[in-house]
Order: sequence, then C-alpha cells, then structure tokens
Amino acid sequence: MGGHRLNLSTLVFSVAVIIVVSHSAQSLALKHSPRFLRKLAATGTPFAPPQFHYETRYFQQRLDHFSFSDLPTFPQRYLISTEHWVGPQRLGPIFFYCGNEGDIEWFAQNTGFVWEIAPRFGAMVVFPEHRYYGESTPFGSAKEAYKDATTLSYLTAEQALADFSVLITDLKQNFSAKDCPVVLFGGSYGGMLAAWMRLKYPHIAVGALASSAPILQFEDIVPPETFYNIVSNSFKRESFTCFNYIKQSWNEITSTGQTYNGLERLTKTFNLCQKLKSTGDLYDWLDSAYSYLAMVNYPYPSDFLTILPGHPIKEVCKRIDGAPAGTNILERIYEGVNVYYNYTGKEKCFELDDDPHGMNGWDWQACTEMVMPMSSNQDSSMFPPYEYNYTFVKEECWNDYGVKPRPKWITTEFGGHVRK
Amino acid sequence: MGGHRLNLSTLVFSVAVIIVVSHSAQSLALKHSPRFLRKLAATGTPFAPPQFHYETRYFQQRLDHFSFSDLPTFPQRYLISTEHWVGPQRLGPIFFYCGNEGDIEWFAQNTGFVWEIAPRFGAMVVFPEHRYYGESTPFGSAKEAYKDATTLSYLTAEQALADFSVLITDLKQNFSAKDCPVVLFGGSYGGMLAAWMRLKYPHIAVGALASSAPILQFEDIVPPETFYNIVSNSFKRESFTCFNYIKQSWNEITSTGQTYNGLERLTKTFNLCQKLKSTGDLYDWLDSAYSYLAMVNYPYPSDFLTILPGHPIKEVCKRIDGAPAGTNILERIYEGVNVYYNYTGKEKCFELDDDPHGMNGWDWQACTEMVMPMSSNQDSSMFPPYEYNYTFVKEECWNDYGVKPRPKWITTEFGGHVRK
Repeated sequence: MGGHRLNLSTLVFSVAVIIVVSHSAQSLALKHSPRFLRKLAATGTPFAPPQFHYETRYFQQRLDHFSFSDLPTFPQRYLISTEHWVGPQRLGPIFFYCGNEGDIEWFAQNTGFVWEIAPRFGAMVVFPEHRYYGESTPFGSAKEAYKDATTLSYLTAEQALADFSVLITDLKQNFSAKDCPVVLFGGSYGGMLAAWMRLKYPHIAVGALASSAPILQFEDIVPPETFYNIVSNSFKRESFTCFNYIKQSWNEITSTGQTYNGLERLTKTFNLCQKLKSTGDLYDWLDSAYSYLAMVNYPYPSDFLTILPGHPIKEVCKRIDGAPAGTNILERIYEGVNVYYNYTGKEKCFELDDDPHGMNGWDWQACTEMVMPMSSNQDSSMFPPYEYNYTFVKEECWNDYGVKPRPKWITTEFGGHVRK
Repeated sequence: MGGHRLNLSTLVFSVAVIIVVSHSAQSLALKHSPRFLRKLAATGTPFAPPQFHYETRYFQQRLDHFSFSDLPTFPQRYLISTEHWVGPQRLGPIFFYCGNEGDIEWFAQNTGFVWEIAPRFGAMVVFPEHRYYGESTPFGSAKEAYKDATTLSYLTAEQALADFSVLITDLKQNFSAKDCPVVLFGGSYGGMLAAWMRLKYPHIAVGALASSAPILQFEDIVPPETFYNIVSNSFKRESFTCFNYIKQSWNEITSTGQTYNGLERLTKTFNLCQKLKSTGDLYDWLDSAYSYLAMVNYPYPSDFLTILPGHPIKEVCKRIDGAPAGTNILERIYEGVNVYYNYTGKEKCFELDDDPHGMNGWDWQACTEMVMPMSSNQDSSMFPPYEYNYTFVKEECWNDYGVKPRPKWITTEFGGHVRK
C-alpha cells in the first residue's frame, strides 16, 4: 500500500514539475515583454521629503476623447509651479513632463533636471499624472478602474496624449498664455509619450526631450535581442568575469532546483523569506535586479527605484568578482544582487513578487498596445536564452485580462518603420 | 362672442408666429452650422453608368481604435484598381481618396481627377468608404448604427483616419508594397481628412491634396462670416443686381408670409408640392440652393449634386436679372433657383426637406466634433443676417441626439490656431 502511494505521489510530482516548468516559460514570456517600471511604479520608494515645490491640482478629463460615449469623467492630478515663470508677456515657456506609469509625485521628485533648468528659462513647470496611475483613476477608485477589461479599456497611450493636449490647451487659456511655447519632457514610457506627442501634436509642443524612450522596440523595427544585449553589455563593460558568472548562474539554478531539496537550498542561498516555489520565480527576481540596475546605472547615488550607490553595476560586479576564492557561483550572485535589493543592509530576508499576474496598469498596457518583442540571445546576452513567442504573450493576456493584444497598432498609429 | 373668438384666435396666431420665428432661428442656427453634403450624400444623384473601373472589397475594421472595449467589428467597403499600378519594384504610388460623408461609389464616380492622373503616375487607386456611410455601417445596418448616441458615438474623424491608416498598412503588406508612397486626396470634409491625415500620420502618407477643405472653420480661427461671404461674392461677381435681388428677397418672403394667405401664395410662387408650413422652411430651401451652387460652380456641365450647366451661378443670375420687366422679386428668385432644383425641367413641383432633424451622419458629426461657427453679415452677405449662437446649437444637438458638442476639440486635436 505504502509503495503504491509513493509511486502515485512521484507521478503527481513529475506532472507538477512539468506544469511548473511550462508556467515558468510562459511567465518568462510575459516578463520578457516590455520591462518597464511595472509594480515598482505603484509602490516606489518611500518618498524622501519633497525637494521641489509645487501645487497639486485636479482637472476633469473625459474618459474617452475619441468617441462620444456617455462615460464618467475622472480627475487628472497635476503638479504645477509658476514660481520661476516669467509670464505670457515675455513668452515664458511651459515645461511639461509627460507622466508615466506611476504616482506623479514620485516622478516629480526624481526629475531634478526639469526643476533645475526651469529658473534659467523662466519656465512654468507642470507634471501631469498619467490616467489610471496614482490618484488619477477613473470610476472613483483604483479598485473599480482595474476591475476588468471593460473598465481598463481606456488605459491607452493615445488617450493619455489627448489628456495632456486638453490639459495644456486649458492651462494656456487660463494663464492667457496661448503663445507660450510648450516643451515636453519624459523618460522611459514617459519619454515615448513625449516623442509621440511631439509627432502627433506639433501645434501644441515645439519640442520634446525624450530620454530612454524605446519607441522603436515594436514589431521588427529593432532586433528583439536589443534590450537584453544592452543590459548585458552594461555588465560586460564593467567586468567580463562578472558577466560570465551571471551567464553561468542560470544553469546552476536550474540544476540545483532539480535536485532533492534543491528549492530549499536555493531558498537558503538567496535568503528568501518564503520557500521558493519554482526556479522560474528566482529567474524573474534576478532578471528584475539586473534589468533595473541597467536602467538606473547613474554615476551618482540615487533612490529612484531603491537606494543605490553611484555606478551600481560596478558595485555589483565588484562583489561578484571579489568574493573569496572558493565562493560558488550562486553565493557570488547573491552577494551581487544584494546591492540592488539590500544596499542599506536593512532587509532580513527577501520576498519574491508572489503575484506576478495581479492587475497592474503597465501589464495591461503591455497586453494591449505595448507589445514589445524581447528575446535573449545565447551568445551575446548574459540572461537565459529565450526566444520571444507572441503566441505565449497572447494566451497570457487572454488569461490574465480577457484582452487581445494589437501588436501592429503602435507602428500604425505612431510609425517607426523606416521607408527606403 | 364672435368678437371674443376672433380676438382669441388672433392672439393664438401671434403666439404661433413667434414660435415659428423662433423655431426658424434655431433651425437656421443648425443649418448655418457646417453646410456640407448632409442628406445629399445619402441620396445623391442617380448614378450614371460607371465611368471608372474598380473592384469592390471589404475590410473588417475595429469600431474603436483608441480603446480596448469589446465591440463588434464592421466591414469597411473600399474600391480598388491596380490596372495602372506599376507595382512595388518600381515603387508605384498609391493614390488614396479619403472617403467623406456619403456613398463611396458616388465620390469615386465624381472624382475624375484621381482616375485621370493615375495612369501617368503608374498609381494604384483606392477609394475607401467613410465609416457609417454607404455600406460601411457598424452594427449590421444603418438603422442600428444610427439608433442613438451610443451606437453613433464612434462616428468621428479620428476613428475614420485610424480606419484609413489600418487599411493602408494592411494593403501595403498584402501587396508587398511597404516602400510605395501613399498620396492622399479629398474634397470638402474628405479634404479635411486628407489634410489632417497628412499631419497626424506623416509616416503613412507622403503628401495630400486637400481641395475645398475648411480645416480653419473652427472656433475663432476665421471670422464666422467667411463661408456666407464667399458664397455671396460668387453671386456678386456675376452680377451685382442678382446679388441684390437675392439679398432683398428674404424680407419679401417674411412679409408675404405674415399676410393673410401668405404661406399659400409663397407655396404657389415657388411651385411647392405641399403647403409651406413656415417661411423658415423656404429660407432653408433657398439657402441650400445658393450654398450648393457655390460649392459646385464648375466651369463645365456636371451632375455631382444635381444636373447643372457649366458656370451655374452665371446661369442663375441670368435668369434672375433677365426676367421681363415687371416680374417681382420672388418670381425672379423662383426662376433663378430652378437652375439648381430643375435644370432638366422634369420636376412638376418641389418637395422641401420635411425632416431636417432626422438621424443623419453629417448632422451627428456637426453636433459632436464639427462645430463650425457660421454667421451671415448684414453688409457683405446676401443671406439673411444671422449671428452664430452656440447655445442654440448645443440645445438643438441635445434635443436631436442627446449629445453635447465639443467645440474646442478639433483645434486641440488637429491645431489650426497660429502662434505668434
């Protein structure tokens, strides 16, 4: 009897492994889609005491600018400072930051550049929040706004750009500033918005400064390996051995995970609070650290995504490479990612993201318009090899949100392909 | 008793006159809004045997390009000819006519220019139909599509432009013609679409020929008197006496209408099939004739809106001015408008438009986005003086469609104001 039970449970275990692996591959597929701020944007770091001064205001926006459906309006939050503005007579410019996928105060506090140059240009500064993020949620609450595909359906880049255009038009009228030039700013997804807005609303903005804005990361415009190659090169540039340790670590994780008690050993090595459920979850956790490190590899200390030293990738590699002889690869990796997850040394253990498919604004956008193919190349990338599979993405999006992505829409609406 | 009754009915009569006048002013307000093809586009002239050869195809379009609502798709009809196209190898251009507010076959048959130049350029010719017109109706039928503000809500210029962009992108892929330049064509509202599309989708079209496209007829960009001044000048240029007869005729109509049996006399003078209900209806009928005559004042015989001689305004004025001495003003006017309403001489009597507020695509567009202020100036216009009143328009639109116009939206979305 006991033997039978054992066999049966072994069988169940094998099936479970297959499911886990297949889930991991799918999960990787979605994550390997556009790697933007995602949940970080919702949680962020605890705000430092405000460095910059502004007023907080609200503007009632149409939920749908492009139809005449009878939908409720929603309050769009915006931060505004006229402290240094020289006014309409002297054609004082309006510096307009295109809010991206998160709380606008977080972006305002972390975009010193705009605040620093505003006095020199005598500029008004406006930081509007992107619809569906922060306090700018339709339907009265984030819970209602994120309920399902119907309530989320107006969370698109075109609607956000129309919000900005309507807000600017209204502000200009209220400040009698019709002739004052508007200059757009933005980074990451907000940079994409700034660039697209300059293209689509040239009558509204005379210029745009778009930073780290992957507007060409759609369809087949750039090779799908581009993103992970750039991240990998940021590590390779610091240290080839560091790059190689990371590159080798994935197989170590997989083979360790497949051994008896392997997941427990990984849990211990990486000091996780909860027992690791699958190696895929650990992959994601490490992938996040490396990717975000490359995004915020500033030459000075920062606390945008988390508290980090200047040149954080250099610091990661220093710890990976510099561990005492005999330290195994996974221990080295653990030392390295501590820079990202625990630079202050205050974390007792690490919580992995246990709800990767929760309702989340950016994931919705990635499942609708922001279909950005991303692969990881066997040779040039330090990440596990992965070939982008649109079918997986489509299925995940259907399962998570009941929505069909439109992978060709962004290039149709905003362009990007170069004609011969 | 008899005296009392008489007084009472006189009182009722006076009240009725006030109501009629006020209705007339309101009705005038709506009509004086954008004077486009309106119902003509639905009925048109009976098609002449096709002069140009094309295939008719259908393309499934999203009803809403700018949200991810789960809405039914609809078939967009388009006419296509590759007869003279030199193909992708030789980068043969694609001539793309931006379908306007009517049956696309009607426009195709009346846009000889595109067909005539296509062979010279080795161009493909495409005539896509505008959503909600002709056969390109959502929800399975025109009746369903025009049911109410909810079903009509996706009838907007932005959605139509997105239809065109998606269609072009698909055609280019199917014809392996990604590098072939697209040139847009359009007249009147279709010309507005061509101009706006070139602005908004520069990656899709390399050029646009927009003819008679009043993209500046919004808000306060041009004086509201512009349209009626241009129409009036077309008559004044032919003959100052003709211009003056028309200018004087409105008071004649009003004073005649106010006399005992006046509406019957007007009915007879203008050979109407049904007894005239109000002088306002006659105003509209005449206003239509003059306005459309100016729109189709071609130097050659045509049958676009109706069968007309070349230089039709010259012909109208010849009849108005040339009537025998002693002919009164209204008889002269009747002789004149016969050119427009009955050039073939086949009409036995005239039916006025008895349902000016019926569900109609262009009137919906005028009540939502296409808010084009139009006034008639006492001095320079030959039309009755009329001051544009947005409040009237708004009320009419609410009564007719249950929709609130957005008078500032077009300039926000497409620009038009000139910055100093």
